[in-house]
Amino acid sequence: MYRVDLNSDLGESFGRYTLGMDDKIIPLITSANVACGYHASDPVVMSKTIARAKAAKIQVGAHPGFPDLMGFGRRAMKVTPEEAKAYVLYQLGALSGFLRAQKMEMQHVKPHGALYNMAAKDYQLSKAICEAVKEFDSSLIILALSGGELARAAADMGLLVALEVFADRGYEEDGTLVDRGKEGAMITDEEEAIQRVVRMVKEQKVTAVTGRDIPIKADSVCVHGDGVKALAFVERIREALVREEIEIGPLRI
Amino acid sequence: MYRVDLNSDLGESFGRYTLGMDDKIIPLITSANVACGYHASDPVVMSKTIARAKAAKIQVGAHPGFPDLMGFGRRAMKVTPEEAKAYVLYQLGALSGFLRAQKMEMQHVKPHGALYNMAAKDYQLSKAICEAVKEFDSSLIILALSGGELARAAADMGLLVALEVFADRGYEEDGTLVDRGKEGAMITDEEEAIQRVVRMVKEQKVTAVTGRDIPIKADSVCVHGDGVKALAFVERIREALVREEIEIGPLRI
Amino acid sequence: MYRVDLNSDLGESFGRYTLGMDDKIIPLITSANVACGYHASDPVVMSKTIARAKAAKIQVGAHPGFPDLMGFGRRAMKVTPEEAKAYVLYQLGALSGFLRAQKMEMQHVKPHGALYNMAAKDYQLSKAICEAVKEFDSSLIILALSGGELARAAADMGLLVALEVFADRGYEEDGTLVDRGKEGAMITDEEEAIQRVVRMVKEQKVTAVTGRDIPIKADSVCVHGDGVKALAFVERIREALVREEIEIGPLRI
Amino acid sequence: MYRVDLNSDLGESFGRYTLGMDDKIIPLITSANVACGYHASDPVVMSKTIARAKAAKIQVGAHPGFPDLMGFGRRAMKVTPEEAKAYVLYQLGALSGFLRAQKMEMQHVKPHGALYNMAAKDYQLSKAICEAVKEFDSSLIILALSGGELARAAADMGLLVALEVFADRGYEEDGTLVDRGKEGAMITDEEEAIQRVVRMVKEQKVTAVTGRDIPIKADSVCVHGDGVKALAFVERIREALVREEIEIGPLRI
Repeated sequence: MYRVDLNSDLGESFGRYTLGMDDKIIPLITSANVACGYHASDPVVMSKTIARAKAAKIQVGAHPGFPDLMGFGRRAMKVTPEEAKAYVLYQLGALSGFLRAQKMEMQHVKPHGALYNMAAKDYQLSKAICEAVKEFDSSLIILALSGGELARAAADMGLLVALEVFADRGYEEDGTLVDRGKEGAMITDEEEAIQRVVRMVKEQKVTAVTGRDIPIKADSVCVHGDGVKALAFVERIREALVREEIEIGPLRI
Repeated sequence: MYRVDLNSDLGESFGRYTLGMDDKIIPLITSANVACGYHASDPVVMSKTIARAKAAKIQVGAHPGFPDLMGFGRRAMKVTPEEAKAYVLYQLGALSGFLRAQKMEMQHVKPHGALYNMAAKDYQLSKAICEAVKEFDSSLIILALSGGELARAAADMGLLVALEVFADRGYEEDGTLVDRGKEGAMITDEEEAIQRVVRMVKEQKVTAVTGRDIPIKADSVCVHGDGVKALAFVERIREALVREEIEIGPLRI
Repeated sequence: MYRVDLNSDLGESFGRYTLGMDDKIIPLITSANVACGYHASDPVVMSKTIARAKAAKIQVGAHPGFPDLMGFGRRAMKVTPEEAKAYVLYQLGALSGFLRAQKMEMQHVKPHGALYNMAAKDYQLSKAICEAVKEFDSSLIILALSGGELARAAADMGLLVALEVFADRGYEEDGTLVDRGKEGAMITDEEEAIQRVVRMVKEQKVTAVTGRDIPIKADSVCVHGDGVKALAFVERIREALVREEIEIGPLRI
Repeated sequence: MYRVDLNSDLGESFGRYTLGMDDKIIPLITSANVACGYHASDPVVMSKTIARAKAAKIQVGAHPGFPDLMGFGRRAMKVTPEEAKAYVLYQLGALSGFLRAQKMEMQHVKPHGALYNMAAKDYQLSKAICEAVKEFDSSLIILALSGGELARAAADMGLLVALEVFADRGYEEDGTLVDRGKEGAMITDEEEAIQRVVRMVKEQKVTAVTGRDIPIKADSVCVHGDGVKALAFVERIREALVREEIEIGPLRI
């Protein structure tokens, strides 16, 4: 029996600012990556987001990012491993405050934005992130880019790792994502994107941008809820998974 | 046998900015109120502060404040109870991340600055703070102004309460502090201040600004480590307590 | 010939967060209150907002607020007059950077949110704001609540003052706004609201919540662009003003 | 007649946090780089800093940095040229608010920390910074690393450029600074450092880390006031300059 998790970023509103369509995406996913107040969100939003996730019975993970609200955590920042570790610990702790208050468990940790992208290519940074996770709760699952350094560091440290794939992104032969801007970076044909997801889950293979098949592991598919079109695409992915008899369920079994 | 705790604010540095003489005050106190990144501190400072407290075997409490770094959390902000509760939960969680990583327990919670002062006079705000504490960990001790609304709300909610007194401040007949600026607000004679502390602990009494004795409970004395003079004063208090055979120990027995 | 300005808050987006429908409201107003990066906005947003205002040939004013992005500057903060003055100067300067770069002039200053509300009732705070404006550029117009302390302080200091009225708010007999939450705070009937505006401009009178007519001066009407309904209401106000042969133009003639 | 400016960073305190010994370094320098509230400082500090500079009759420049208070603007951030330009404009404007209020002129602009270091090596980033300066006030002087990209971009855009040298840093043969951590990065012998400064000013030459003499232009020497030793070193530099009949004066003649 095949099985895959659908994860999405949640709780990215801030103060007076609303972002995303959390109510619409929640029924379609099994794991939520919840912003922790550094690149997005604030305590009131976090509290509400956990309540929503609890009501919908989906799993919650921490989504720690850089302390860069103005840049939404999407800009590379040259932090030291010590800083990265401390920033992750802070955000894991902060989110856990709301989880404890609402008697929820934390399932996983997925770094956000530039921290995610940098970690995928930087073993030292990944190690710092994993140290924070391990010291905080060694039973947490690291949700990492399939083939990246974060997945490698987490495995080296004995942490549970779930591998994430993207329906709409092209892959290089080494399993890394084709850089945005380069040809083949985006899979624009929705039908093709969906077929790729199904194949990644069932055959553990994907066709790289070079045309060659490469091995890939898909524990979770990253989906987005930031628009009507994105939501419709998630529904199509779900339909295809059901049709293909792939069970949709959270990371933690 | 008499017993009292000595508490002090710790870990108030931020980034490139150093504040306080943490290394000097730590050996003199039994409980530390650790800033949580809202009114002061950052994750790297928090990590180091917990390590120092652990090495010195003193107890740690959370010291949550308003999200006002520029004003050091000392300015009244009209937040809703919902906001106050969420801000406290966030900060309790964040600090607990570092405590968990270093296998330490949280002993108490003491609001900082304007949040402390406002809570002492506002039952609804105090209730919101106590709800956060209770939902996070109902075994935590609320460290509150003797005679204030926070102490009352905590007791009403079944939380453990420790009452805090000040060596260098005058008291009104109703047990509240004389407002700064008013005559009698500060006890400037060190010997007198020390005698007042000893009497508060042993006799549970203090002479109010009116000259009349009032009942007061002193579970903890708030001391400061932000200067050579302040440190010398703490040492004098300690000597007096030892001489009077008052045990100096943390809140949690 | 009667004449009135229509002002609205603009440029309140921040980083990844979009707020308001600036493109839709700009053609309907004559003066924009532009956020300066404290309660809302960031430098990139400010630059784009000034460019839009310039293209539409509307007048620009600074809209300084409290340093409280999380609360959108809507929460009372107990700042000193020295702090308030410095915060306003900082924000006036920051906005003027973009105006200079785009060869635009600043027309007016209107405090935002809690700063506006507090200033309307606090002469000392108003004085601090006016000192900042006067020292920065004594030819700027203070846009203030009709009947409030800011208008009074500005006049006392010899600054130009424009008085602002609200179409959808009730007035007390002393000319202050009926507190939100109290009966009569909001004028919910659109036609009534529009007739009140016309009368305020033409007759300089409005019926207070008590039923009695009071004198009022309406140099500018505050309108909102944060929704389809709000925009439609602004269009109705404009139509009524045109029908009544009231000229719609900026504060600076 | 030889002449050189001595510049130092000023006004880096923030809220409750004090940094630097501004009162001590001010009498020793001729140009101050004043922090603008992004990497350090706040409006109250800025106002006081300008007042001090005015009283001491030294020249003031803007010292814009990255929006990273937690990292003191010392961490590389991958911002777009559009963002860099807007951030500089914002900070130039903000500082100019206090200058206008105190009837002072802005003399120069010197980027801070990581922005300075990145600009020295990145022409596009330097161009963005220079565009901000040019659009704000084309008569401002860019204070840039001798031999770096910022100096080149400023010259290409027709801006006035002053070149900055460091007494205590080693130089590569191409005129760039030897990276910290590499051998020869720091000149630890004070006498040698002073002789190098004198030679840079008088002969426009310095001995690179390779032992070879290279041409260098020294319009200004960067000095520090963050400690008793640093201050004593500045006094020694001043004495040497006076002894060598090198006039010490600001950039703007």
